[in-house]
Amino acid sequence: MTTFDEGLLSPVAVGHDVLVTDAAVLDALVRAEHALITAYLDIGLLPAEVHAEITRAWGGGRDAAAIDAASLITASVAGGNPVIPLVAQLADRVPEGLRPWVHRGATSQDIVDTALMIVALAAVERLRDSLVQTVDGLHRLEDRHGRDVVVARTLTQHAVPTTLGARLDGWRQGIDRAITRTTSLAFPAQLAGAAGTRASFVEITGSADAAQALVAAYARHAGLEVPSGSWQVARWPITELGDALVQTVDALGKLASDVTTLSRTEIGELHEGAGGGSSAMPQKQNPVESTLIRSAALRAPQLGATLHLAAALAGDERPDGAWHAEWPTLRELLRLALGASAHAASLVAGLRVDAEAATRNLELTRGLVISERLALVLVPLIGRSRFDDLIASVADGAQLGDLVRAVPEAAGLDVDALLDPAGYTGVRGMPGAGEHAG
Amino acid sequence: MTTFDEGLLSPVAVGHDVLVTDAAVLDALVRAEHALITAYLDIGLLPAEVHAEITRAWGGGRDAAAIDAASLITASVAGGNPVIPLVAQLADRVPEGLRPWVHRGATSQDIVDTALMIVALAAVERLRDSLVQTVDGLHRLEDRHGRDVVVARTLTQHAVPTTLGARLDGWRQGIDRAITRTTSLAFPAQLAGAAGTRASFVEITGSADAAQALVAAYARHAGLEVPSGSWQVARWPITELGDALVQTVDALGKLASDVTTLSRTEIGELHEGAGGGSSAMPQKQNPVESTLIRSAALRAPQLGATLHLAAALAGDERPDGAWHAEWPTLRELLRLALGASAHAASLVAGLRVDAEAATRNLELTRGLVISERLALVLVPLIGRSRFDDLIASVADGAQLGDLVRAVPEAAGLDVDALLDPAGYTGVRGMPGAGEHAG
Amino acid sequence: MTTFDEGLLSPVAVGHDVLVTDAAVLDALVRAEHALITAYLDIGLLPAEVHAEITRAWGGGRDAAAIDAASLITASVAGGNPVIPLVAQLADRVPEGLRPWVHRGATSQDIVDTALMIVALAAVERLRDSLVQTVDGLHRLEDRHGRDVVVARTLTQHAVPTTLGARLDGWRQGIDRAITRTTSLAFPAQLAGAAGTRASFVEITGSADAAQALVAAYARHAGLEVPSGSWQVARWPITELGDALVQTVDALGKLASDVTTLSRTEIGELHEGAGGGSSAMPQKQNPVESTLIRSAALRAPQLGATLHLAAALAGDERPDGAWHAEWPTLRELLRLALGASAHAASLVAGLRVDAEAATRNLELTRGLVISERLALVLVPLIGRSRFDDLIASVADGAQLGDLVRAVPEAAGLDVDALLDPAGYTGVRGMPGAGEHAG
Amino acid sequence: MTTFDEGLLSPVAVGHDVLVTDAAVLDALVRAEHALITAYLDIGLLPAEVHAEITRAWGGGRDAAAIDAASLITASVAGGNPVIPLVAQLADRVPEGLRPWVHRGATSQDIVDTALMIVALAAVERLRDSLVQTVDGLHRLEDRHGRDVVVARTLTQHAVPTTLGARLDGWRQGIDRAITRTTSLAFPAQLAGAAGTRASFVEITGSADAAQALVAAYARHAGLEVPSGSWQVARWPITELGDALVQTVDALGKLASDVTTLSRTEIGELHEGAGGGSSAMPQKQNPVESTLIRSAALRAPQLGATLHLAAALAGDERPDGAWHAEWPTLRELLRLALGASAHAASLVAGLRVDAEAATRNLELTRGLVISERLALVLVPLIGRSRFDDLIASVADGAQLGDLVRAVPEAAGLDVDALLDPAGYTGVRGMPGAGEHAG
Repeated sequence: MTTFDEGLLSPVAVGHDVLVTDAAVLDALVRAEHALITAYLDIGLLPAEVHAEITRAWGGGRDAAAIDAASLITASVAGGNPVIPLVAQLADRVPEGLRPWVHRGATSQDIVDTALMIVALAAVERLRDSLVQTVDGLHRLEDRHGRDVVVARTLTQHAVPTTLGARLDGWRQGIDRAITRTTSLAFPAQLAGAAGTRASFVEITGSADAAQALVAAYARHAGLEVPSGSWQVARWPITELGDALVQTVDALGKLASDVTTLSRTEIGELHEGAGGGSSAMPQKQNPVESTLIRSAALRAPQLGATLHLAAALAGDERPDGAWHAEWPTLRELLRLALGASAHAASLVAGLRVDAEAATRNLELTRGLVISERLALVLVPLIGRSRFDDLIASVADGAQLGDLVRAVPEAAGLDVDALLDPAGYTGVRGMPGAGEHAG
Repeated sequence: MTTFDEGLLSPVAVGHDVLVTDAAVLDALVRAEHALITAYLDIGLLPAEVHAEITRAWGGGRDAAAIDAASLITASVAGGNPVIPLVAQLADRVPEGLRPWVHRGATSQDIVDTALMIVALAAVERLRDSLVQTVDGLHRLEDRHGRDVVVARTLTQHAVPTTLGARLDGWRQGIDRAITRTTSLAFPAQLAGAAGTRASFVEITGSADAAQALVAAYARHAGLEVPSGSWQVARWPITELGDALVQTVDALGKLASDVTTLSRTEIGELHEGAGGGSSAMPQKQNPVESTLIRSAALRAPQLGATLHLAAALAGDERPDGAWHAEWPTLRELLRLALGASAHAASLVAGLRVDAEAATRNLELTRGLVISERLALVLVPLIGRSRFDDLIASVADGAQLGDLVRAVPEAAGLDVDALLDPAGYTGVRGMPGAGEHAG
Repeated sequence: MTTFDEGLLSPVAVGHDVLVTDAAVLDALVRAEHALITAYLDIGLLPAEVHAEITRAWGGGRDAAAIDAASLITASVAGGNPVIPLVAQLADRVPEGLRPWVHRGATSQDIVDTALMIVALAAVERLRDSLVQTVDGLHRLEDRHGRDVVVARTLTQHAVPTTLGARLDGWRQGIDRAITRTTSLAFPAQLAGAAGTRASFVEITGSADAAQALVAAYARHAGLEVPSGSWQVARWPITELGDALVQTVDALGKLASDVTTLSRTEIGELHEGAGGGSSAMPQKQNPVESTLIRSAALRAPQLGATLHLAAALAGDERPDGAWHAEWPTLRELLRLALGASAHAASLVAGLRVDAEAATRNLELTRGLVISERLALVLVPLIGRSRFDDLIASVADGAQLGDLVRAVPEAAGLDVDALLDPAGYTGVRGMPGAGEHAG
Repeated sequence: MTTFDEGLLSPVAVGHDVLVTDAAVLDALVRAEHALITAYLDIGLLPAEVHAEITRAWGGGRDAAAIDAASLITASVAGGNPVIPLVAQLADRVPEGLRPWVHRGATSQDIVDTALMIVALAAVERLRDSLVQTVDGLHRLEDRHGRDVVVARTLTQHAVPTTLGARLDGWRQGIDRAITRTTSLAFPAQLAGAAGTRASFVEITGSADAAQALVAAYARHAGLEVPSGSWQVARWPITELGDALVQTVDALGKLASDVTTLSRTEIGELHEGAGGGSSAMPQKQNPVESTLIRSAALRAPQLGATLHLAAALAGDERPDGAWHAEWPTLRELLRLALGASAHAASLVAGLRVDAEAATRNLELTRGLVISERLALVLVPLIGRSRFDDLIASVADGAQLGDLVRAVPEAAGLDVDALLDPAGYTGVRGMPGAGEHAG
């Protein structure tokens, strides 16, 4: 078999994408077919011994080890999807008389959609573990460095003081929200037949209620939710999943973007635990995990867009291309989310804070970082014009503290306290107020 | 003022975008500034008479009629956002002594983010009205035509029978889900100061609790939710909104795609109530509303992707471009969703069903549309090979019914019933089973 | 080694992507490293026997068979790219004294960029072969069916007559343009050192001229163009390549979209040579190749967008994520273009025209398809109002010919000729005028 | 008229988008209709006095001042495009007997496509002026600062020395390429009739050759190229235009990304001429022009993707939505390119270089910035292991120079020269070698 992608060009996901490989998808396709067999058993149409025989023939029904993947893949082109040759291989493995039970009443889309949901559910659970680990890591950083006063930057320029805790809060907020979103996703099975009507299952089982029971049993055996109807061309389960994955990668991308900035040689407030080396420059310690996470964050949104387009163009009862465009796109999104989240957990666990660098940066503008607060206090005393002159003098090289102490009207002020960045960090700086910043 | 866009190139939204125009945004910006003034009143810092005076000076604080929009827009370039010149104009309108109260403690982002949420909330409410109307229209179609038997198509080919009701169900499912999603959105106000810490508000109000009270009052007066902290660089409220809008347009795009297909000259099962004319061809009745909805559906996903990118790249405490990329993108998404949903409501209300054409199409394959069912019944009797020969004969021009009646083993079957498409429409075709197909 | 993607979810590319697999990329990485060795030989710095020894140690330098890909891929994560571990493996294979020659003066990006260009060049050549085959196939269809009169459809409705030749012209125009674009692409090598200055090569070779000679030799041995400077963070070679690939897939997507429409059961003017089967419906002949091409066309544009984003965000002298986002994206685009073009060639070669169906469709509107022409002729004689009435009568069921013949003012007209669709097909319908329509 | 967009949310384009407003498009639509009239005059079908009368009635045919835009826009919804009501208004303005000459033989798409090309051509010419100005500005910076030695950064970390000239080269390379691309674009007129066959024009003019002459005259009067056939559904002229615009914005985005990084408070090597202020922080000097350019760069790629999708989905002889999706998308891309390029020209003209900061940054790693060169020289003398120890000592706080001077084997080396960053800047650092770096 020709292998297209072993990870050579996808370092962000290497070691983290085993749940979403072709092998995992193939397992899930077999599991979906076996869930159908078992559903027929559950509703009493398939004798237990027949079920057992098929299950044995399929190696237990949970893995695809015995499938000839290479020939399956080659054969998938003719019909445009892998289920047709899969059904042929699965049927070949059972005695001829039992073959009508294989894929009975189902359409390719039932199996592909169900398999992708099986794969996605497992991947999202793993993803969530990584996100929870990342949040735990942020809490540990908070414990150690949450009250560190650091400079806040807007449009790349020093703005006002903040705390490292407030920055961690921001990262955590995004990740918490991603956890919430991924937790509320629907992972429905699909079993609706040739055109979403379940007509074949009504025919086979004899009633709509029995067909519904079959669908419910199938979903249960696939480990998925019972669908309320067909979503063959109502693709919100796919786009909501895609959106949640992109949102997850967004949140991690924000964190990673801050890390790469804050680990710039000139800034140096943060360092990855184990920076990556360079093939040319022996001294380099690159923020590799952040870089890899960012590479995922630059790719994920456009993959999400493709899923939406496919949903909007899901014409007829099965469209001529839109459905096929979903498979590799959704899978690549899962892969990026798995890789980015694993690296985020590791990155946060190893992140080193250089508090000294943070303090040095905070002082870089000779006091101007506190000018917003100073304006609130001084402008009422000396007017905007004199205040602006004072700020301009700092831009010319003076220390703000010296200038303020020379202002007669400021005589009664505790200038040291006023200019202390730690005194102007907002709700996080107030005793007991941390919880408001949630 | 030079006007960029009056709708000349955006027919999908003409007449439906009044809630999201520049004028609406400007109103919302003023409203946000006024909400801040009023919040200071609420928490007892601003005397009532001062509030009244400022409110009068601002024309009541709810509309921007008195703002010189043209000069504001020109002036917005220097600082990169419209709030700086807006604050200047608003301050100019109040006595000098009251000017410190204008925009007190706030940063431009507080006002822009809040204003966009004000605009978005109103737009989403309108959008939901249109979606509810669309669903109502689908229910009316269901009442009249839900049991019409029509052909289901997969990969553009006739597949099996279905009902128009099942097709309507699919459309409705997508739209219902869009209603659910838009209903569960968060519309938080933003009031966090220069870098998201609320430091200025703690300074001004004297405590974190008082700052929190100020934020709560501000949110209330802006008609929005009280934010739990700052979302200045945790942009999930924007991306979740964007995702819900794209999902909405997807659902409408699916509906519209089906309508354009089903109103093809050769198919003719559906017709828009008032088709559009042509500048060249007098006989044309184009499915214009569907076409416009589809034009929105082809654009929306990529706009949603831009919002995600901006979220992922929301570096520092305010990024250098990502935030600015959001504004026009989110607004255009709202516009597309408003336009597409208004047209969907109107389209569905006027949709005409040609049941005769549907029946003619159903018969086009001389019975083959029922071949899946027939296989379930006949293959056990005559084997796969004879069955395939029979199907092939139909492809060569024979009527399936004639062939089946000539099969000796089929003597005991009610061939008319077996071949009746109405008998093979699945759960929707079963008495009392409609609710299962939900 | 865990294999991520063997093609299970990518039927459009199965069998057509061998030039762009991980194995092909790994070969190209080795080839780039070997081209550097050989360039040192060319400029006289490396003794011939040393070159020969290294070449032998690397299995000839053109294939990566001896590389342990699995451990390389695992090791690539630490530094974020595959070159660091590749250099280690390559160095291990030569005597210690020769190791300084391995990767001498180069940076990882030199090798990755060069390798991707090697891979892309071979893929684009293959792609162009498929496009030329597709054009040849269109010419053959033109010979047989170019003058067939068929109905033109706009906004899904019958509009005026056209010829199949005009439709084929449109397809060909898009593909010809894609051939032109791919032919004019630049495939430059990259050899600029740690930060694009070539400082290491100047150091090693002793002069800027010698460094330039080294780069030229390297490019020649890599089979690529000599770059004019560095494009490490001027990424137009990548985006122009990406744009040309997307444009190619667009052109094929247009063709495929027309084929899926024209092979609809109700239209039936075209049929794929070998339609795909269905797992559920025995009679189905799906337009699978068109469907697969369309699946590529729905995905390619967003991949192209990612390449542009990466180019815009190629900050510093090597960016923190944007470069890494390019690799899998460009490769997937190549894969889609290879797959789509191979299927297009095969699709066109096998395409069957049902001239009878085309004629039946042309007559479906009882003459109205010619109403634009009729308006040009009749309105001057009978006025717009009477003409409109006449058209409306056809909409009510009359034959247009009967109505026209009953118009007294039309007595002198050759109504048969006037209403003959073949007489209103424009420049393609005029003897000797075919070349104007090019 | 309700105005949607006056620029409130689009500061990047304010003042730079006059060529692509709705008013400009409306002018171009009228100009296209008038070019058709004049083309009929040119080929001898329209008497000169009739042409003069229509021209007078249309205010000269070059501007749309007399058109009631508001009612036109409202009326455009019914047919889905603005041409149908425009033709009605234009016809109303001429005597009844002349009305058949208005829009004679044309279809809406002929006029919209031609008008968008007219608008695009003018915009691209303006865009190119800005790009040329930007390049001129870069040359002026090169003259003053091209030989400044600065630090090169990769993955955010100090890597090796470079020159500001090399950095400017990289920016210029991207912009030069954008100029080349925009210069080689095709701007064809469109005049092909209802379905691209020119049938109406053959009918009206009497021959394919006369129709061709009409098209040629029309293109000339529209200021555009004569199309070789119809591109109504072969949309490469749109996507090639879109790609060139995105490529342009990419190149500017790269420049702007570097400027925002290099003007970070901690780095400070570059400053925008007139930084933008802040509504909250009096000391802030934000890199506003770069920020606005970056906001465009984050949006443009996804707009380009929409154009490609529309091209791929340009089904039939005019598609049901894809064409309509192009108009606002292409126009917004033009707007972004115009705004971004105008700001780039202004940004580069005002850019201030802080050479002192650059030198300070270069020394920040206590010599390590030269370690790649040092490895080339020292490793052969002292081996890799001792060299690595030496580098590690610098990481622990030592000065590299001191350590090297203490190495016995380095006794014969000119350590000052070896460690001078200016001596390791590659081809740009070599006398007379600048031209190689092009």
